[in-house]
Amino acid sequence: MIEDTIVTENVKSRLAGVLLPPGIGPFGGITAPVSDPAARTRRNGRKLCGDLDEAIRRSGLKNGMTVSFHHAFREGDKTINTVMERLAVLGFRDLTLAASSLLSCNAPLIEHIRSGVIRKIYTSGMRGKLAEAISHGLMAEPIHIHSHGGRVHLMDCGELAVDVAFLGVSTADEFGNANGVSGRSHCGSLGYAMVDAARAAQVVLITEEIVAFPNAPASIRQDQVDLVVAIGEIGDPSKIAVGAARMTSNPRELLIARLAADVIEHSGWFEDGFSLQTGSGASATATTRFLETRMVRKGIKAGFALGGITGGIVELHQKGLIGKIFDTQSFDAVAAESLRTVATHYEISTNSYANPSSKGAYCDRVDLVILSALEIDLDFNVNVITGSDGVMRGASGGHSDVAAGANLPIVVAPLIRSRIPTVVRRVTTVVTPGDTIGVLVTDHGIAVNPNRPEIAARLKAAGLPVTTIEDLYQRAIALTGEPEPIAFQDRIVGLIRYRDGSVIDVVRQVKA
Amino acid sequence: MIEDTIVTENVKSRLAGVLLPPGIGPFGGITAPVSDPAARTRRNGRKLCGDLDEAIRRSGLKNGMTVSFHHAFREGDKTINTVMERLAVLGFRDLTLAASSLLSCNAPLIEHIRSGVIRKIYTSGMRGKLAEAISHGLMAEPIHIHSHGGRVHLMDCGELAVDVAFLGVSTADEFGNANGVSGRSHCGSLGYAMVDAARAAQVVLITEEIVAFPNAPASIRQDQVDLVVAIGEIGDPSKIAVGAARMTSNPRELLIARLAADVIEHSGWFEDGFSLQTGSGASATATTRFLETRMVRKGIKAGFALGGITGGIVELHQKGLIGKIFDTQSFDAVAAESLRTVATHYEISTNSYANPSSKGAYCDRVDLVILSALEIDLDFNVNVITGSDGVMRGASGGHSDVAAGANLPIVVAPLIRSRIPTVVRRVTTVVTPGDTIGVLVTDHGIAVNPNRPEIAARLKAAGLPVTTIEDLYQRAIALTGEPEPIAFQDRIVGLIRYRDGSVIDVVRQVKA
Repeated sequence: MIEDTIVTENVKSRLAGVLLPPGIGPFGGITAPVSDPAARTRRNGRKLCGDLDEAIRRSGLKNGMTVSFHHAFREGDKTINTVMERLAVLGFRDLTLAASSLLSCNAPLIEHIRSGVIRKIYTSGMRGKLAEAISHGLMAEPIHIHSHGGRVHLMDCGELAVDVAFLGVSTADEFGNANGVSGRSHCGSLGYAMVDAARAAQVVLITEEIVAFPNAPASIRQDQVDLVVAIGEIGDPSKIAVGAARMTSNPRELLIARLAADVIEHSGWFEDGFSLQTGSGASATATTRFLETRMVRKGIKAGFALGGITGGIVELHQKGLIGKIFDTQSFDAVAAESLRTVATHYEISTNSYANPSSKGAYCDRVDLVILSALEIDLDFNVNVITGSDGVMRGASGGHSDVAAGANLPIVVAPLIRSRIPTVVRRVTTVVTPGDTIGVLVTDHGIAVNPNRPEIAARLKAAGLPVTTIEDLYQRAIALTGEPEPIAFQDRIVGLIRYRDGSVIDVVRQVKA
Repeated sequence: MIEDTIVTENVKSRLAGVLLPPGIGPFGGITAPVSDPAARTRRNGRKLCGDLDEAIRRSGLKNGMTVSFHHAFREGDKTINTVMERLAVLGFRDLTLAASSLLSCNAPLIEHIRSGVIRKIYTSGMRGKLAEAISHGLMAEPIHIHSHGGRVHLMDCGELAVDVAFLGVSTADEFGNANGVSGRSHCGSLGYAMVDAARAAQVVLITEEIVAFPNAPASIRQDQVDLVVAIGEIGDPSKIAVGAARMTSNPRELLIARLAADVIEHSGWFEDGFSLQTGSGASATATTRFLETRMVRKGIKAGFALGGITGGIVELHQKGLIGKIFDTQSFDAVAAESLRTVATHYEISTNSYANPSSKGAYCDRVDLVILSALEIDLDFNVNVITGSDGVMRGASGGHSDVAAGANLPIVVAPLIRSRIPTVVRRVTTVVTPGDTIGVLVTDHGIAVNPNRPEIAARLKAAGLPVTTIEDLYQRAIALTGEPEPIAFQDRIVGLIRYRDGSVIDVVRQVKA
């Protein structure tokens, strides 16, 4: 908005002979009033870029810098691939990619890693061909797998300094006010993006729709945004519920979900005003459904629900069984619509949600959480990242965050998946340390961490099928046999960062 | 939340022989699960202080540091005096007081300046006995008078680094989620406090009411707050509308207000979707009323209203004549109630509102603003801080911010007040440079800044009584005579900081 500078001599002369304090200068004049409509349009539209190339150029991005993205569109995301493709075409190299997570849809990144555009990756997880390729040694540097809260911690402690955040938003105005609840392709909560908007040196909004100023509510605010550019498509919201966030009709998953609801009911934490996070796994989502009858029967209501929000949680909220929703990621269209329209459904950043070094995270205040597992071992350590073949195919997510914070973290998992045991002697990869897990619920019974004897006593008193994790393990291998050890090479392809930034495990390259 | 640390040896052994990247350490264990209800209560309540003394002690405040406050309760504020009184009793010295503004109610601070508790002050303004005393040389160091946007700029550029912010909020939960719209004493928007909460090293919430976690909406968030303490009274909301923010039935003020509405109507900016800020002055507030009929007659609506919000603005919003409200300070109970209940009435920080070095401020996007003046001179320079006796008795506020940003800043003022001219040859103190002022509306006619000839042409074409500022000045002194120059001493008692941090004028000590 620099127009001609006018120096008002009459004003400046007032300071003649005045000795100002060190570091404080005299008034030097103002910029001219913008009475010319053309100048006004220029001023107001200064952040708006004609195309993505212009936005990239104006962001000041250079080789070796760090670019960031959010994954609220999950398998429907189009922003990451589109931007990385342009960065490749423009010849950028040695970039660090800091995505809040990566999914199967991000397979095109393989090419950009091969060609040297991407040198290093921070992400909560990976799936599909990209994960397969990285597990097989695609990258020279190991990938960093962090939790949602741990990502913010890595930013705040300086390790992960984002130079340019490219944030997909369904609508933005030309001044940078944006949300994920209006426009054509809404993802709902921008909980991940809010973190980057508050921390990146340059913030570029990638939007499908430029709306009239002032866009409100502003999940991302004009005072955080440098540049705004419209592209054809930022994401397909119909694919958000694909993958992790699905409903189930599988009888075994329903059995586990019912048992998990029983555990909650008798845990000692199921009192009026309790709080919960049920997440996005199939059994976890189903648990929400079974809670309803138990809450009605006992005449209690939940104070709040936290985290990734599904239609099931929204339904309980609509029925008055949950007081408030704190939504860091909307797992389906129902959740996104509720966030848009319901006053007591609040959008929160992943800093507020789970950053262990923030001044206060919701995950430290939640009572009951349902978590999933690819593997869980005799120490209750949980693996949510590597499959039984040693290939990465999951995400750390908020798993270790809420496990550390919640009053009772409950893992739900079938004892056996496709003839492969879930309960193992020693998990392939530790993402969440066992000491933070309270209960394991399987279709063959319930195991309680020995460090929570009061919980075991309550569940036994309620007549629930409580056994030991050793017993579940023996049952599993009796059915499947002890699995063959996975053949790994020595080379490390992934570092599993605990939420405090430490390395809790490494992932080694699988043998081809 | 530090409980016993448990180190899971089985997990740590996984990293045997692994060489980690520099600066990244191995997992060292977790804190124990909190199954003990007493430990849980301790963890959850860790921010809660038993009394103000404990909060002060735990904040780490030391002599010579900077403490900050907001003034949303205006003349009803009780937080500033209460906290400063305790700091005095506890023996603190040489503090810098950074209040978003000070009012007549803050007269007790005189004693703390005298006794050396307060050494330096940053504020937007002062009134009453405190202002009188400082104008007469109470302080060894000159006071810094800043604008609302300029205050944030001074914080962001490092000059004004707040060590401990003491923020009065009507309700807070024990974890630090707070707002100004619930509870007994609601001030409405916490626009000033939001800035300090985001920037101060230590944030202490001073509240009348500790409510159940999670308090929502959270204008100030748990991840910004270190300590929470309840005190008897933080402020009396019935006194918010005292002073600057009052309604008028004075015929001269109503005449000016009607003329200002005429100016708006014919300014060229009065089109569908226009935006406005009418502020808190008597004529300014009344102007809002006269706009209604003009909007209805022309069949247009305002896109948004900005800044300090009054019941008059809320009424237009309720009638659908204003689309959105962006509220940085609620000037009365009607505004506070609307903020609490109406989805399109948004709370914004003074960073979003007016910080000239933020990435985007609303004040740069507003079309029409009504501003007040104690004096305005032949260069259109405006004084809103010193009275005709040279004593400080006003506030910089958002005056220079919106004058610099708005498309048409309109000053409204009576030509003469109590036989003292408002239009003068040279204002006693420049707060807002004349080059940013578009139009002056008085009860004796309208003057347009020569740098806005297109506005003058439009108003003349509409038949409005447009004259020159020289003519208004001559009329004024014809009625009152040329005022005697004020007798000042050489000593500087105040530095007027323009919004960019520069010194635009100084205030000298008045002769006793």
